[in-house]
Amino acid sequence: MTTSSSFSRRNFLAGLGASALALPATGFANSFDNDQYLAQLAAQKRELFGQDRKLGIALVGLGSYATNQLAPGLQQTQYCRLAGIVTGTPAKAEQWMQKYNIPKQNVYDYKTFDRIADNRDIDVVYVVLPNSMHAEYVIRAAQAGKHVICEKPLAIMPKECQDMIDACKKANRQLAVGYRLHYEPFTREVMRLGQEKVFGKVKFVEASDGFRIGDPTQWRLKKAMAGGGPLMDVGIYAIQGARYVTGLEPVSVTAQFGPKTDLQKFKEVEETLFWQFQFPGGVVSNSTTSYAAGVERLYASCENGWFELSPAFGYGPLKGRTSKGPIEQPIVHHQANHMDNICKVLLNNETLPDHITGQEGLRDVRLMQAIYQAAETGRRIDLKA
Amino acid sequence: MTTSSSFSRRNFLAGLGASALALPATGFANSFDNDQYLAQLAAQKRELFGQDRKLGIALVGLGSYATNQLAPGLQQTQYCRLAGIVTGTPAKAEQWMQKYNIPKQNVYDYKTFDRIADNRDIDVVYVVLPNSMHAEYVIRAAQAGKHVICEKPLAIMPKECQDMIDACKKANRQLAVGYRLHYEPFTREVMRLGQEKVFGKVKFVEASDGFRIGDPTQWRLKKAMAGGGPLMDVGIYAIQGARYVTGLEPVSVTAQFGPKTDLQKFKEVEETLFWQFQFPGGVVSNSTTSYAAGVERLYASCENGWFELSPAFGYGPLKGRTSKGPIEQPIVHHQANHMDNICKVLLNNETLPDHITGQEGLRDVRLMQAIYQAAETGRRIDLKA
Repeated sequence: MTTSSSFSRRNFLAGLGASALALPATGFANSFDNDQYLAQLAAQKRELFGQDRKLGIALVGLGSYATNQLAPGLQQTQYCRLAGIVTGTPAKAEQWMQKYNIPKQNVYDYKTFDRIADNRDIDVVYVVLPNSMHAEYVIRAAQAGKHVICEKPLAIMPKECQDMIDACKKANRQLAVGYRLHYEPFTREVMRLGQEKVFGKVKFVEASDGFRIGDPTQWRLKKAMAGGGPLMDVGIYAIQGARYVTGLEPVSVTAQFGPKTDLQKFKEVEETLFWQFQFPGGVVSNSTTSYAAGVERLYASCENGWFELSPAFGYGPLKGRTSKGPIEQPIVHHQANHMDNICKVLLNNETLPDHITGQEGLRDVRLMQAIYQAAETGRRIDLKA
Repeated sequence: MTTSSSFSRRNFLAGLGASALALPATGFANSFDNDQYLAQLAAQKRELFGQDRKLGIALVGLGSYATNQLAPGLQQTQYCRLAGIVTGTPAKAEQWMQKYNIPKQNVYDYKTFDRIADNRDIDVVYVVLPNSMHAEYVIRAAQAGKHVICEKPLAIMPKECQDMIDACKKANRQLAVGYRLHYEPFTREVMRLGQEKVFGKVKFVEASDGFRIGDPTQWRLKKAMAGGGPLMDVGIYAIQGARYVTGLEPVSVTAQFGPKTDLQKFKEVEETLFWQFQFPGGVVSNSTTSYAAGVERLYASCENGWFELSPAFGYGPLKGRTSKGPIEQPIVHHQANHMDNICKVLLNNETLPDHITGQEGLRDVRLMQAIYQAAETGRRIDLKA
């Protein structure tokens, strides 16, 4: 990860000129006042851009995440607002128009989507479709002249990621990945603890994310749409965690599939997967991802202590502790905080920090494919920088 | 593990006739009154065996564990007492005789050790020597007509374990392993939670134990004496943990060595090791052991919740929580509690439960050798029941 300098807490807290929102300094209790926080953001925003300027976001794909996380989050954002929707289901369009007061001219289906180019209400397209559809819609959005946020994983294969990055570059638009934790305060704090070696050098990371999946008909269990199983869905957080607490890129990986206990449900994708990264300097990590068992933890063992988030990757609130005591940070709405931080950069005509861009998405997709290769071959896979 | 029935909390708490000491029932706060606990044990013991009858234990090898854990523990025990010592260092013999009021005739060196056969003060020999010496001294102790407790790992190779088991059987003496956690209340509680399926079936276990080793000259880093690195020393606890919360024996294992970051210190043994067990029914575990990083946790993900000990394996106090709240149990002196439970069985002329015997030690030694084989070959190793 090349983010250690651009991504330090110092920059994070440097105030209005920095790329990240000036969240309150460390030491906040978990009884943090969210209203006060939002009022501070609003004041900053007025100072920078005037009262009314918010970027208009169109959500593409109105599934669970758009419905239950992004749309509610967009009711709290200071730098962006829910301006449009793209859906193939007329009944959903009707519901959303009413609920969120979206004008008919900002509603598209997948055929009419490209006309979004002419819509000045829409500045940013947020692609929330199944993984296999990310590339097409990111590229079409860029070609329509919009900035793009794309849910993770950026795509299934590295080639698609590169095509998406190239398309955005060609259109002179920016591409962000839905890594909502990169601006989340507990996560920022463990990035700082690890990358600034607060407990000495990180020696070992245990990072795991899994849950017991329900509905056996969902697209996450279809290889063609998801590209894989829990690794693609939540294991990617464990990859991210090991990378962002060490601030390092792995140099090799071993991996092992767990057994399938439900052959029907897991006909197409893995049920459980383990992998071990080696990083420069002999730093190691061990990870588990699963659709059969709940697990959610990011633990770092350092030369002079340890720190941990558990829960580490869910929608929050996260919870953390160190060998010296609890981690106390403000609790924010992850998705609102994420979109606000991205849109503040865009409004400011600045460049998104590397750790949130398509390049970062490409890194994880490469690693996920290497993990699958390691598990399939039983061999250690060397990773190119 | 064939212990689920003999080893349930019900039996554990069934009172004086059961093989385990009748510890207080669940729900005790951590402010548990140790004095009251000891007084209860003493009262039970008087009732069973009369005031003065305690088994005499001789410690063989007066290293750190004997000095700092076992001897102080033996000042708290109700069913046994520190009666003798075996040491090759005359200055240590002098110190211990004075400190613990040990008569000269109960002090042996490694040449005179076998004369312990004639010493009626000594009922039990506790072997606390380096791993490579366990077999010889266990067998000599049995041949001298003594019951034996042997530190874990029981030995380095399965053949040695079998020889030890056979020698004790032939001498009609009992052989226990220094698995001090098998009677520890937090550990008993997680055995119960897992084996009695309190949160449903255990699906996944993450069990890890490691620490940053100091003195590079110690025997634990010499392959001939230790038989291996952190796996033999503390990784064995993670193996035990995965087995005793599931109540199952693994059917296959994969394993991977971590890199060596200190080639001098880790010239002969591994620095870090990862392994993954598969158990019957698709239950899986993932583990890390290391001499380079501190980690100590036993986490079980179940169908309807989870439970965790962290710290899970150290000398205490352990600490536990579940998806429903904290685990509250009495805090005991691990070693005193362990020796008392073993000696109560011996005093009672009962048979030690399987989970604490040489057979259990042999199981772990077989698994450790399979883990090394898996790491060395890169292959999944099938385990015979």
